[in-house]
Amino acid sequence: MKQSMLIGTLLTIPLLFGTAQAENLRGATTGPTSAKGYDHPNQYIHLQPTKLADNMEPVIVHKEQEKAAREKLQAFEKTNGKKPNIMFVLLDDVGWSDLGFNGGGMAFGNPTPNIDKFAHGGVIFTSAYSTPSCSPTRATIMTGQNPLHHGILRPPMYGEKGGLDGAVTVASVLKKLGYYTQGIGKWHIGENKSSQPQNVGFDDFYGFLSVSDMYTEWRDMYFNPEIVLSPARFKMKKKENFIKYNVHCTPKEGVKKTYLIDLDSIRNLDQDWATYGEKFIKKMAKSEKPWFLYYCTRGAHFDNYPNDKYAGKSPARTVYSDSIVELDDVFGRLTKALEESGQLENTIIILGSDNGPEQEIPPHGRTIFRGGKGSSWEGGVRVPTFVYWKGMIKPRKTDGLFDYADFFNTFIAIAGKPGAEVAKLVPEKRYIDGVDQSSFWLADNGQSCRYSRIYTLNQHFSAVRMDEFKYTFVYELQKDVFPSGFQGGFSGSIITDTGGTLMVNLYTNPKEDVSVGVRHLPLTIPLMAEKRRYEAVLKKYPPQLKIGF
Amino acid sequence: MKQSMLIGTLLTIPLLFGTAQAENLRGATTGPTSAKGYDHPNQYIHLQPTKLADNMEPVIVHKEQEKAAREKLQAFEKTNGKKPNIMFVLLDDVGWSDLGFNGGGMAFGNPTPNIDKFAHGGVIFTSAYSTPSCSPTRATIMTGQNPLHHGILRPPMYGEKGGLDGAVTVASVLKKLGYYTQGIGKWHIGENKSSQPQNVGFDDFYGFLSVSDMYTEWRDMYFNPEIVLSPARFKMKKKENFIKYNVHCTPKEGVKKTYLIDLDSIRNLDQDWATYGEKFIKKMAKSEKPWFLYYCTRGAHFDNYPNDKYAGKSPARTVYSDSIVELDDVFGRLTKALEESGQLENTIIILGSDNGPEQEIPPHGRTIFRGGKGSSWEGGVRVPTFVYWKGMIKPRKTDGLFDYADFFNTFIAIAGKPGAEVAKLVPEKRYIDGVDQSSFWLADNGQSCRYSRIYTLNQHFSAVRMDEFKYTFVYELQKDVFPSGFQGGFSGSIITDTGGTLMVNLYTNPKEDVSVGVRHLPLTIPLMAEKRRYEAVLKKYPPQLKIGF
Repeated sequence: MKQSMLIGTLLTIPLLFGTAQAENLRGATTGPTSAKGYDHPNQYIHLQPTKLADNMEPVIVHKEQEKAAREKLQAFEKTNGKKPNIMFVLLDDVGWSDLGFNGGGMAFGNPTPNIDKFAHGGVIFTSAYSTPSCSPTRATIMTGQNPLHHGILRPPMYGEKGGLDGAVTVASVLKKLGYYTQGIGKWHIGENKSSQPQNVGFDDFYGFLSVSDMYTEWRDMYFNPEIVLSPARFKMKKKENFIKYNVHCTPKEGVKKTYLIDLDSIRNLDQDWATYGEKFIKKMAKSEKPWFLYYCTRGAHFDNYPNDKYAGKSPARTVYSDSIVELDDVFGRLTKALEESGQLENTIIILGSDNGPEQEIPPHGRTIFRGGKGSSWEGGVRVPTFVYWKGMIKPRKTDGLFDYADFFNTFIAIAGKPGAEVAKLVPEKRYIDGVDQSSFWLADNGQSCRYSRIYTLNQHFSAVRMDEFKYTFVYELQKDVFPSGFQGGFSGSIITDTGGTLMVNLYTNPKEDVSVGVRHLPLTIPLMAEKRRYEAVLKKYPPQLKIGF
Repeated sequence: MKQSMLIGTLLTIPLLFGTAQAENLRGATTGPTSAKGYDHPNQYIHLQPTKLADNMEPVIVHKEQEKAAREKLQAFEKTNGKKPNIMFVLLDDVGWSDLGFNGGGMAFGNPTPNIDKFAHGGVIFTSAYSTPSCSPTRATIMTGQNPLHHGILRPPMYGEKGGLDGAVTVASVLKKLGYYTQGIGKWHIGENKSSQPQNVGFDDFYGFLSVSDMYTEWRDMYFNPEIVLSPARFKMKKKENFIKYNVHCTPKEGVKKTYLIDLDSIRNLDQDWATYGEKFIKKMAKSEKPWFLYYCTRGAHFDNYPNDKYAGKSPARTVYSDSIVELDDVFGRLTKALEESGQLENTIIILGSDNGPEQEIPPHGRTIFRGGKGSSWEGGVRVPTFVYWKGMIKPRKTDGLFDYADFFNTFIAIAGKPGAEVAKLVPEKRYIDGVDQSSFWLADNGQSCRYSRIYTLNQHFSAVRMDEFKYTFVYELQKDVFPSGFQGGFSGSIITDTGGTLMVNLYTNPKEDVSVGVRHLPLTIPLMAEKRRYEAVLKKYPPQLKIGF
């Protein structure tokens, strides 16, 4: 009641702040809006974004950087004779602070020298956002939609039906644009036939279709005796459509089982996949087509079984840290294969994580932000991310907003369809939450094209970020569930509406525990307006429900 | 009662674990103790440290790295014709996560490109420890003693008597060993005559003798009207021995006032000091003597008044972040002066902070660890630190233990008196808490020479760390003071004894909120033994009290 009254009152206020006035206001209270020598994050709260198509998120257009990026890509294509390859390495359950380039690595007993070397040679994004969990993020990367629009609100478990079926994926678009599309590793965006990788755009896939704990938790007597010894309590594993094998998939031959995934073979998965990845990379050196490699690791998903070569070898000597060290070597193997096959200069390398650290039982990942996997607090969705392209992308660090939905538009832009052109590739009624960030990546000192960041939490639209301000209206209560509180995750929280204007400054308060909504009222107004804008989007392009609660 | 019974029971257990057995135990439960390709932190919990002198902390002797380091230094001296210069830049109230090289910087709206460049070109210490607060840390650097031994348990306020008087400082030793010793910036280790910089070893000092809030809080009508408008409540400022000026000090002329520090001039202090620093560096290029520059910034001490050139210029646009950006430029000016005067190759550059972030009122610093300034939780004492020496120190990141007391021994070792030799330079009854880490710094992949880290909290010996395990026996209660809890600091906490074996694994649990003392009992035993060892040290070399509670 109180909240809606407050919003009612504030609804009239935005009219008082024209662009010029808003600029003055920021200038007067917090200093000039630009300074030489610093890579400022986007400061867009007072700007008017541009609508490219009705079914696309509005963007901030940077004409010059856009031009520079297009010219750079054209020059590259002219020299190289084809578009660049794209290698996207997606880690699992790895938190923002886990890797060396974000301050972790050695500090937490899991050095990541290979990853760090490439990170520091590329663009490190300090504000790159996944969704709160695994499958929703993977679907977001594939579709350019946030979970409310693609409808996969949580991971499908034990062969449960539903997934990408019917979606236009980035793989299918890239394939259409002349790319060879390869998937390796974890899939987990649907096991049913029409959701399988070979049926949503991949020329070849090698890996498993679910998530590692599905293969292990009903087998592991040490960790789950209460499940292993009571099979009747666990009927799911008998379901036919739960494929318990590592598989090889092609459009021609469908799904071919390669080997059973059990407690022995799972220890070798990340190594086996890396070998497949190396072979793929070396083979493609002679290809006339450019290629897209979507490479998803098993580690460091919470049920970690590091390879014998790594078990106990990390300084921290925990299965989590051992797995991080193993992943660093996997990344090293893939990049070495690129180097040795002469493809480092014509391949864009991206590394990211599907969500923040799972924090139920240590050892687990770390984040400097509040909360973890399953939460739309920063800890759950702000993930370690960088883009590297030798000779094409200048090393830097940026706090410009980047949403994992943006990979869709950005990859497609790099493949030749920038900006609004992507809209022609999807059905009219399909809303694209991603924006084309190719100029952000490619232009020297490029700025984000993203006006705001939209947060979702399960079936809710939960928060909005503009500049460094985050306005939260759906909240995860945690201290009220357990006396000691809880770090965040799928279990152990209550979701509720907030009261008043709960806004935090993420620069001064990365732990999101001090609201400044009343003292910084002029900044809550555009955030509230942005919330209303996206509510209207959701009205016109309603939420889908494929896998929900 | 319960605690002493438990300890009584455990006292008999250490006898069961010989070195070999302890090694086996670690091997069996957590894997081998070394692995190629990773810079392992010290794993010393099962080792026997070496006692170099009765009044010195025992050390881990690495014979080969020691030899390598000595040879490296001798070769340098032969080529260079003199010992290396040492430039130590000490920041104020800057948290572990504030600077770019530890994952902060841009992420929190205060990019630090100059600092990061040098950090990544040197050795980044992820486990470098200050004391919980300003003056105690400065005295620790100067004396090589922890606060219990040097007796400065908190900062002296408003000309309060007491400080370094009578101490053998690193400056006085370096001077004796042929160095020109220069202090610039914040002093705050005593204003009384015999504690002043020129009387404890500095050939020249330019800066202020106290701390910035002493000069500002009774002048600032905006932040402290209740003080400014009630002068009778604030008698301290009238004290004669409170020098309200920036000063120039030399042994010959004593203290010379240069200009009043008020709300105008304080905005220029870090710039003025940087100019003095540049001039000093350029002048010393022709010196026959090597030099020691102890350079302490005003920023980002919590009462931040950034220079007009920086106000509102950081992406975060807060006085804290503006100050960090200013400090990054100050560091850039000093290193540029070294480069331009041809001294980069013969100068060791160190950057550190005096304690964790002060967290009373935002905007303030950030740390991924628990607590802040005033606390002996990691957030209060784990501080951003690196050492750079062009061509002499190989870039790397290490989690080996480093205590700020070690600067004393290490600088003196570099000046020619390594290891036990330092003991001859101080009175027999004076305990040296620092250890010589010159080989840790200089040898390729050098390992820490420190067996454990001793934590102090006000007048208490509060915790011990060995490897990644921290055993806490004096605890800062925070949630019991205020309903919402408190981040840490001098105010807002209760200090009490712990019950049982409160031990955390700092790798898996950097936030120090999960005790593993019972499940990891074999590791608590050497930690308890280490506690008893240092208690015996404190019995033989009793705590001093110069400025206390």
